[in-house]
Amino acid sequence: GLIAAGGALPSIVAAEAPHLLVSAIAGITEPSLAALAAHSFSLGEWDARKSALRAAGVRDLVVLGYLRRPSSSQLTFDAGGAQIFSRLAPKMMAGDDQILTALIEALEDEGFGVRSVADVAPNLVARAGQIGAIPASPPVMDDLQRGMAVARALGAFDVGQACIVSGGLVLGLEAQEGTDAVLSRVAKWRSEHPDGSRPGGVLVKMARPGQDLRLDMPVIGPQTVRGAQGAGLTAIGLEAGKGLLAPPNDTRALADSCGLALLGL
Amino acid sequence: GLIAAGGALPSIVAAEAPHLLVSAIAGITEPSLAALAAHSFSLGEWDARKSALRAAGVRDLVVLGYLRRPSSSQLTFDAGGAQIFSRLAPKMMAGDDQILTALIEALEDEGFGVRSVADVAPNLVARAGQIGAIPASPPVMDDLQRGMAVARALGAFDVGQACIVSGGLVLGLEAQEGTDAVLSRVAKWRSEHPDGSRPGGVLVKMARPGQDLRLDMPVIGPQTVRGAQGAGLTAIGLEAGKGLLAPPNDTRALADSCGLALLGL
Repeated sequence: GLIAAGGALPSIVAAEAPHLLVSAIAGITEPSLAALAAHSFSLGEWDARKSALRAAGVRDLVVLGYLRRPSSSQLTFDAGGAQIFSRLAPKMMAGDDQILTALIEALEDEGFGVRSVADVAPNLVARAGQIGAIPASPPVMDDLQRGMAVARALGAFDVGQACIVSGGLVLGLEAQEGTDAVLSRVAKWRSEHPDGSRPGGVLVKMARPGQDLRLDMPVIGPQTVRGAQGAGLTAIGLEAGKGLLAPPNDTRALADSCGLALLGL
Repeated sequence: GLIAAGGALPSIVAAEAPHLLVSAIAGITEPSLAALAAHSFSLGEWDARKSALRAAGVRDLVVLGYLRRPSSSQLTFDAGGAQIFSRLAPKMMAGDDQILTALIEALEDEGFGVRSVADVAPNLVARAGQIGAIPASPPVMDDLQRGMAVARALGAFDVGQACIVSGGLVLGLEAQEGTDAVLSRVAKWRSEHPDGSRPGGVLVKMARPGQDLRLDMPVIGPQTVRGAQGAGLTAIGLEAGKGLLAPPNDTRALADSCGLALLGL
């Protein structure tokens, strides 16, 4: 089964893995996916969702998408939901990872197996080496290597997954703001400092060392490719085996047509 | 002497160190400081500036402020200027540090000594420990320690000097965009994700390991304090002996009145 939170990723995974039963979250799952769902419950209706999943014979789950704390007026609680939420509440102030970790623990305590996207839709996972049609030149490979080193150094502090490097110079680093925001500000910075940056550059996205890939995997999609083009980049490197292309064909085709090299690192 | 490039820092240093002869850069030095200068030349009038500095008996120089490549229409070259610029040109694409390093080397080749702000205006340099009136609580000290560790890890990649940490979570990292931009985006991110962040937080500014302090020192001023307050922070930590408060009294007084702890780390 697939518990589908917000954003496009649950829809893309559902399309790649049509055998998954979709368990929608009322008001959070994308409407087009919610329309295909086996059922839909409020985030707080835990007993009801659990019963519906068990009745459908679901044993293993993937939990995907953005999960922001909904306003309390949007929440309907049943008994199990109230219990789960009292357990999650202290984590709500402690960053996305800890909320999701607590949610996965709660699902496992209920006897569900929790899987990563890589388990259910392996076609989305970046393979090592050249992925698109455009090869990376040696200077681009140097920037990709530097980006990997920077991302690994930051990963030790549980910091975001992306960095942008051009000619060895680190132009942008992601903390909590998301990769699209980093690409936008590099585009803006370059437009304001045409002499301070070098042409080209790369986006690197890596998982944090020890990151639980069932929570969250580094993802790039068409919007990332457009953002990279807008920031003047010439390549995107994604951690092989851990980064997702979502959707894979469209993302690869767009990178090719934008002249961006796409690689698994 | 003080070769005054753009921004407020040269004026603040000139006020703290009135014995310095001010050598203005036409169109770049702040007008209020240029009005007090001993002379003013275009960035390209190198022989003229050199002669004027030597005639005034200047042997040691501080070079301060923002130095962006001017448009060529603003540049007047003399013979020495043309020579220096042909030497600087390849560095112009390689980041601020390399431009300034080349400029300092050129000045040293001409026989000038090049000093840091700390040498000429030691009153601006952050001392270790509590600087303002507000002490840092143990959880704030934990965030400051984490910020130092993150800044040191990034420094190994020659990346910017600032990071923002709240309850152990890294909310923002500076690459090329400047500290004010990092503070603004943390403020924006917090307003959009009131549940994803924790109250409080700290700004840490550190020099990069091995950074040449004659080029550039980490600086905070009243605008930084206002930005930190806007981002919901409760403390600012500056590397002791390497960070500058500019101007020192106003910055400290504003931090006190905003309820922000100010520390040398």
